[in-house]
Amino acid sequence: MPRHVQLNSSGELRHLLSMEGLPKKIILEILKRANDFLKLDGEILIKKSNLLGDKSIFNIFFENSTRTSTTFEIAARRLSADVINFNVNTSSTAKGESLLDTIDNLAAMQADMFVVRHSKSGASVQIAKHINKVAPHIHIMNAGDGSHAHPTQALLDMFTIQHFKGSFSNLRVAIIGDIAHSRVARSDIHALSILGTPDIRVIGPNTLLPSNLSELGVHGYNDIDSGLADVDVVIVLRLQNERMTSTTLPSADEYFKYYGLTEKKLKKAKPDVIVLHPGPMNRGVEIDSEVADGPNSVILTQVTFGIAIRMAVMDILNNCKQ
Amino acid sequence: MPRHVQLNSSGELRHLLSMEGLPKKIILEILKRANDFLKLDGEILIKKSNLLGDKSIFNIFFENSTRTSTTFEIAARRLSADVINFNVNTSSTAKGESLLDTIDNLAAMQADMFVVRHSKSGASVQIAKHINKVAPHIHIMNAGDGSHAHPTQALLDMFTIQHFKGSFSNLRVAIIGDIAHSRVARSDIHALSILGTPDIRVIGPNTLLPSNLSELGVHGYNDIDSGLADVDVVIVLRLQNERMTSTTLPSADEYFKYYGLTEKKLKKAKPDVIVLHPGPMNRGVEIDSEVADGPNSVILTQVTFGIAIRMAVMDILNNCKQ
Amino acid sequence: MPRHVQLNSSGELRHLLSMEGLPKKIILEILKRANDFLKLDGEILIKKSNLLGDKSIFNIFFENSTRTSTTFEIAARRLSADVINFNVNTSSTAKGESLLDTIDNLAAMQADMFVVRHSKSGASVQIAKHINKVAPHIHIMNAGDGSHAHPTQALLDMFTIQHFKGSFSNLRVAIIGDIAHSRVARSDIHALSILGTPDIRVIGPNTLLPSNLSELGVHGYNDIDSGLADVDVVIVLRLQNERMTSTTLPSADEYFKYYGLTEKKLKKAKPDVIVLHPGPMNRGVEIDSEVADGPNSVILTQVTFGIAIRMAVMDILNNCKQ
Repeated sequence: MPRHVQLNSSGELRHLLSMEGLPKKIILEILKRANDFLKLDGEILIKKSNLLGDKSIFNIFFENSTRTSTTFEIAARRLSADVINFNVNTSSTAKGESLLDTIDNLAAMQADMFVVRHSKSGASVQIAKHINKVAPHIHIMNAGDGSHAHPTQALLDMFTIQHFKGSFSNLRVAIIGDIAHSRVARSDIHALSILGTPDIRVIGPNTLLPSNLSELGVHGYNDIDSGLADVDVVIVLRLQNERMTSTTLPSADEYFKYYGLTEKKLKKAKPDVIVLHPGPMNRGVEIDSEVADGPNSVILTQVTFGIAIRMAVMDILNNCKQ
Repeated sequence: MPRHVQLNSSGELRHLLSMEGLPKKIILEILKRANDFLKLDGEILIKKSNLLGDKSIFNIFFENSTRTSTTFEIAARRLSADVINFNVNTSSTAKGESLLDTIDNLAAMQADMFVVRHSKSGASVQIAKHINKVAPHIHIMNAGDGSHAHPTQALLDMFTIQHFKGSFSNLRVAIIGDIAHSRVARSDIHALSILGTPDIRVIGPNTLLPSNLSELGVHGYNDIDSGLADVDVVIVLRLQNERMTSTTLPSADEYFKYYGLTEKKLKKAKPDVIVLHPGPMNRGVEIDSEVADGPNSVILTQVTFGIAIRMAVMDILNNCKQ
Repeated sequence: MPRHVQLNSSGELRHLLSMEGLPKKIILEILKRANDFLKLDGEILIKKSNLLGDKSIFNIFFENSTRTSTTFEIAARRLSADVINFNVNTSSTAKGESLLDTIDNLAAMQADMFVVRHSKSGASVQIAKHINKVAPHIHIMNAGDGSHAHPTQALLDMFTIQHFKGSFSNLRVAIIGDIAHSRVARSDIHALSILGTPDIRVIGPNTLLPSNLSELGVHGYNDIDSGLADVDVVIVLRLQNERMTSTTLPSADEYFKYYGLTEKKLKKAKPDVIVLHPGPMNRGVEIDSEVADGPNSVILTQVTFGIAIRMAVMDILNNCKQ
């Protein structure tokens, strides 16, 4: 990810495409801004504001995901922006129009920000580079592109960790699951590294671990008990169904036996460990219900924080000059 | 329906799930509030207000119904609420997530009210009980669950009857159709009873009448002429297509011959009888076009009143303390 | 198109159904109003206003078109109206309800304006005539009905031509493609005629040209070089896929060879010719990328102008008395 695509010439955040290459200062600014949108008195509440009152945000989903689309819609509405949901499956690409023609057309419809999800890795970067040429006032937020990046998920994970653990400088964090194909894992690893996490671990069978572990600065574990030893944070990844039907994994039961997070396995971690999951969960596959609903789980808190993080990113992008 | 699920400890309406067990006082309060939202000068108009200006209402439809969803959306917008349409068919349940996990996630998205439609009888009660534990600030409105209840339809029917007939205390009301499987019929019968209607009749072949007529406090008629004699109000139910393909009914033509409401059959009722239908109509099956478009029909007025009723329920729920 | 359906008794625009029969004065008023919504300083921007702040606009699409629906939604939101998207495919018509029952029901839901797209020619006229009887306060905008009319597309084409060429009184305008079946072509030809364009040309093979050329007041050309000679404006039509699979046309390649607009063919036109296309484009079929992305193309500017035109029509309809 070339740094200059995400940042403007003054080093401000112009698009949010990836955690990779993002300055620590900007990540911390987003986390701080998200906190400003929360009212933390007993229940966690999100304030409504008029900060984007005359702006139009387009949810452009080339890959269907009602839930993710909804979180961006809610964030935009909390800022009083207009939201246009544009599900591209049912639209012009079906008529043979190219990706960039679709983008050009939507850009001409008086948009201020695009939230883009696409099944192709790097699609958001391609779109941002194009937009910088044809409609430089528009900001791009990547809502997940292939196995490349899912930066708002990583940011809400970082916000959750910071909320419960205070700082990153002494943490042991483990990520369990299909690290090799997961945009969430990639973005989390980059974010944790930039924020100075000293011990980042990935846990899974070799078929699901990436080959460039040392390049990523993480430690790989096939044995979950060793991987979880004394960790402060566990991020459990959703096991995609397509993995289970391939030759990569024998079966969901087999996966649960070795890598499904149970109370028993979690005992290896610190007593105040927090457990995160990006959702939706496969209970009984990558996580046991005892853990999902247990005292260490912060999974639903993540969802609420996700609204605040997306508001923060929208507000910061909106304040960026070209 | 246990009364305490719908009401809070002060006896205020906390969720709207069913007519059964609802105090008369609360029903009358809803009808009165709905009237406040109407401007009745010549045309029936609905005022716009800012009463729910900072609230988020989620339309969560596990069973597809664009029209019903739209009426709730319009009501919410008239109160200046944000509306999030969440069609669950295309979303995470397809990925194997459980009903309550979906509900938990949406609850974490800063929602204030859920409008829920589900094909399973009792789903709304199950969700409300769960929400009372995990997110007690959220109010549930049942937009139809299986053959259990459809309370806003019953309330708009009551509002329509009250508008045209003034009071319930002297009325004869007949409901024609598939009483046994209809959530509309069930909710209407409960509401009519609570409001003190002395003579409630259900008309249909034995295969479509419930077995517990006396328990419900209604009179059953197989012969439509006897059933309609001197009634003030007729509620015609939509004949679901699935009934016609089963062994329950010989054919749509046969049904129309015996139970389809024609001008001729309607002559048995009082001259100023009003005819209601929850829509969408099967013309030529349960109702003849002469009646549907005739002077006794108040079917389209029901639709407008339905917006006001839903606004009233939203406003009252919004004012309920936990 | 009987004139009195679109206009009220004072000659004001009550519905927008077709260009045919529309007074020149009204077209010019729409173009002028659209201009008021634009801020033309360097970039083209559209101002937000509160002109329809308490109104509800229903997008009723019997024929799926996410992009067209989106342009109306954006226009309505820029005027602060509530927008209800009602996709009829997934709704009650599937349950056998008639077109006019659906319209009656939506009319009863406190709507102020209907944007209607339908695959049947004349559907918008049928709906407007019906609405004049049952809900005369509602205004209809035709967003495309069969091969009959697409008036907002014609208006945005006229706005684009006026913006770049100043006046219609000396223009040569050519339309290339499937003139016979195109609602865009029909509406453009009527609009150009009413605005006094002296030379309107249609270009295509005989199978795609209408038989009543002289009645329409246009000149037909099979040879594109002759047709484009010295023209000021070229409107390229999208070639519908269904034409290519029929016996009407041999193949997309063959069509491109004879009628696809290339830089070479465009050299026959005036040097400052502008090229329009209603989108979405089939690059390499009816238009070459060199032209689509070239200096004479105003295709994306059309899209932005389309928002302003739709706002103008909505504002003018909203000011019309019954």
